[in-house]
Amino acid sequence: MLVGLLLTGNFSFAQTAATLPLVSVQGNKFVTAGNKPIVFRGLDTSDPDKLQRDGHWNKEYFEAMKSWGANVVRFPVHPNAWRKQGEQNYIKLLDQGVQWATELGLYVIIDWHSIGNLRSELYQNPMYETTRKETLEFWRTIAKHYKGNTTVALFELFNEPTVMGGQAGTCTWPQWKEIMEELIVIIRANGSQAVPLVAGFNWAYDLTPVYQDPINAQGIAYVSHPYPMKREKPWEPQWALDWGNVAKKYPVILTEIGFCGPDDKGAHVPVISDESYGDAITKYADANGISYTVWVFDPQWAPMLFSDWKFTPTRQGRYFKAALQKYGKQ
Amino acid sequence: MLVGLLLTGNFSFAQTAATLPLVSVQGNKFVTAGNKPIVFRGLDTSDPDKLQRDGHWNKEYFEAMKSWGANVVRFPVHPNAWRKQGEQNYIKLLDQGVQWATELGLYVIIDWHSIGNLRSELYQNPMYETTRKETLEFWRTIAKHYKGNTTVALFELFNEPTVMGGQAGTCTWPQWKEIMEELIVIIRANGSQAVPLVAGFNWAYDLTPVYQDPINAQGIAYVSHPYPMKREKPWEPQWALDWGNVAKKYPVILTEIGFCGPDDKGAHVPVISDESYGDAITKYADANGISYTVWVFDPQWAPMLFSDWKFTPTRQGRYFKAALQKYGKQ
Amino acid sequence: MLVGLLLTGNFSFAQTAATLPLVSVQGNKFVTAGNKPIVFRGLDTSDPDKLQRDGHWNKEYFEAMKSWGANVVRFPVHPNAWRKQGEQNYIKLLDQGVQWATELGLYVIIDWHSIGNLRSELYQNPMYETTRKETLEFWRTIAKHYKGNTTVALFELFNEPTVMGGQAGTCTWPQWKEIMEELIVIIRANGSQAVPLVAGFNWAYDLTPVYQDPINAQGIAYVSHPYPMKREKPWEPQWALDWGNVAKKYPVILTEIGFCGPDDKGAHVPVISDESYGDAITKYADANGISYTVWVFDPQWAPMLFSDWKFTPTRQGRYFKAALQKYGKQ
Ligand SMILES: [Mg+2]
Ligand SMILES: [Mg+2]
Ligand SMILES: [Mg+2]
Ligand SMILES: [Mg+2]
Ligand SMILES: [Mg+2]
Repeated sequence: MLVGLLLTGNFSFAQTAATLPLVSVQGNKFVTAGNKPIVFRGLDTSDPDKLQRDGHWNKEYFEAMKSWGANVVRFPVHPNAWRKQGEQNYIKLLDQGVQWATELGLYVIIDWHSIGNLRSELYQNPMYETTRKETLEFWRTIAKHYKGNTTVALFELFNEPTVMGGQAGTCTWPQWKEIMEELIVIIRANGSQAVPLVAGFNWAYDLTPVYQDPINAQGIAYVSHPYPMKREKPWEPQWALDWGNVAKKYPVILTEIGFCGPDDKGAHVPVISDESYGDAITKYADANGISYTVWVFDPQWAPMLFSDWKFTPTRQGRYFKAALQKYGKQ
Repeated sequence: MLVGLLLTGNFSFAQTAATLPLVSVQGNKFVTAGNKPIVFRGLDTSDPDKLQRDGHWNKEYFEAMKSWGANVVRFPVHPNAWRKQGEQNYIKLLDQGVQWATELGLYVIIDWHSIGNLRSELYQNPMYETTRKETLEFWRTIAKHYKGNTTVALFELFNEPTVMGGQAGTCTWPQWKEIMEELIVIIRANGSQAVPLVAGFNWAYDLTPVYQDPINAQGIAYVSHPYPMKREKPWEPQWALDWGNVAKKYPVILTEIGFCGPDDKGAHVPVISDESYGDAITKYADANGISYTVWVFDPQWAPMLFSDWKFTPTRQGRYFKAALQKYGKQ
Repeated sequence: MLVGLLLTGNFSFAQTAATLPLVSVQGNKFVTAGNKPIVFRGLDTSDPDKLQRDGHWNKEYFEAMKSWGANVVRFPVHPNAWRKQGEQNYIKLLDQGVQWATELGLYVIIDWHSIGNLRSELYQNPMYETTRKETLEFWRTIAKHYKGNTTVALFELFNEPTVMGGQAGTCTWPQWKEIMEELIVIIRANGSQAVPLVAGFNWAYDLTPVYQDPINAQGIAYVSHPYPMKREKPWEPQWALDWGNVAKKYPVILTEIGFCGPDDKGAHVPVISDESYGDAITKYADANGISYTVWVFDPQWAPMLFSDWKFTPTRQGRYFKAALQKYGKQ
């Protein structure tokens, strides 16, 4: 026993007067005050560290996202950027973004943006390198820091779980569940009311294990990233089985959707498609009360939503800007 | 296969002629030669690294502890101090302390002084950071080095296990047992006859799982740290259920007890109380053959036992100096 | 999702025109094209990093091994050498050796040369230090790099598993199996057709658990290191029970055998013996279709096969040079 006088990174977010209503889960819906349902439709930023280097981590960037019709924005925190900046500097970046989001009435998803097998600690490439310990510590830090902050409504625990067909080793669903459940315990014990978001394997595409063996925790939601090339057309019946029917019981949010044409800059598997994908995924999501955010509000990462810092929409940018703006006019 | 010519830190303790009788376990008692029971009553030093920096890691310090009536002293080795000094330098410090203790007839407890969840590797604050691997390696090193040294009678495997109500993740008792049992295998396979001391959760307070599911190893003892605020008065029936009845079957040692007044320097949860705590805990321990050491023989760490380097007793210092000296006069 | 433009060490081996026939497993035999059985008999190099420092990692060294009658050579990659050189430099060394081996028609075993408990991550001494993560990553890298290279026929997953009688903690056979099975998944998912070689405990001596609980993977082989002092004479009935009868069902390769006289340079437990060991082990191996490689083609590591860089055979060198050359004349 020793009186703890050390600073342990537990510096709190300085809250502003204006706050957004607290988000929680009721049945298969996200709700705010008075159990009012909310469907999230918004945009994925690129890494705040990348935007800072580009000189565009600023309120103008958030105003653009607001003007496109977003009601939520997702911050993908890459583990290598987190380590490079250090906890305190990176959190300052997040605090700035949360502040701008709050001022504009945008909810925030914080996403621990790794890809790979968190059990074996093998990842798709070095930018996604992390450890179980670092991941637990990240969420402990974030949970403590944003305790009581209602803008930061959703915590996406691990971006894209995948064993890469065995190239990244093995992980069973029960092993994955155990890691996710410990994260949820940590987040809540550290005082956070944010809704944990849990993804499945196959790069966050596959939620089929949830039907028989859901995460053992209340008040959470599930994630899928149904990029167009994950399945061949017709997509809808496959989406229903793969992840869509989970939305009958739990809230579901597609935290990455998006497409580009085969000759567009940055075209790569599994995102190559056309507007028919946009039509299908937004129609399917809307019909089932499923939330989504579009990847990615950046002119260099792919599939990009705009092509220059005047926010000139790309092909998918034109599609999703119109789609998002339409909800506001309904 | 390769002839191992590398030095692996396996330098041995240079033994002196005078040695203390070997301590072992018989039933629920610590015993020495001829199965003579011994009850340990003594003092917790602060970290030898801290005392060295203060210029007080010297024989005078040990003579003071002897004069206060201690028959055992406990060295809390903080993982961050162990890493800072490096294995070889830190072991030199320990060797000095063991030498002075031997000369004065004091037994030594070496305590790996971390606080937190060794399974998840989340800790209460940075000074307690360690890993399972480092913990296994620490005990392998200590077991090899003090092999055959009878002064170093007790190895406290991990100071205060706690999941911090989930803030440090999850750890079941079977998971904790498995880690402790592996440590005991390592210690004994490396030739040590020291008695392993095992603590329970809730910051080393709770031993209730031991009743149904004891550590699978012979010749060990259990630890509790029953600071006054862990329970409200009347303490005794709760102590009996929480850890005291374990002493009916196994040796128990309270390696941290202590108190200070609410306005004393360093007052903090869970140590605030008064002399009624001193009366209760010493009476309960003595009635049940339970050993104890008082935290902490230092003028800065709390609750402190003395207030200056003339070893002027504080309030709890006056209490426990008298209590310890009384055993010598019985 | 993000287009991966980072180089991840996935640079491929530049293949030459000449290649050796692909090795695979049929029943209890290694086979090449048309299911033609092959028994490997060859030599263990010292660490390529050590040979490079000595100025002898060159074609002359491989020509000497060829002239001694080897049809296979085994490269023991020590984890500390791997880290010291770095992945890219170390792979250049391996590529050179694989090139010389290919030119001379010698198959290659790559051996991750650690000794200890990969579960607890406690090792025999610092040169064997590694982690599970590093071991998985090593094999991912090697599998990708030598994909399609038929010279590199055999991957020895972990040189000598041992808990050192508890000094290195605990590891059950099911726990060991699980680690080996994940490695095999990784190797194959990354495109390698090399045959994984799996050893048992007791410094790669004991294969008795395989009878009841074999590794859950097809197309693999097992390893033993039956140095002379692992058992007392008569060796043969004990060898049969300890590892030899495994060869009735699976291919077995003794990737380390060898001896030296009690007064020879480098003599140490468990290698001290005489030519009667050479007679016994080669006769037993030959009678049971068991492959082997002799430790070690180096004038300083023990038991050494030659005494100077003219490749002058030592006592065991004379024995095994004659033994290997005899197969070529049959
Ligand atoms: Mg304490
Ligand atoms: Mg997957
Ligand atoms: Mg060996
Ligand atoms: Mg606890
Ligand atoms: Mg073993």
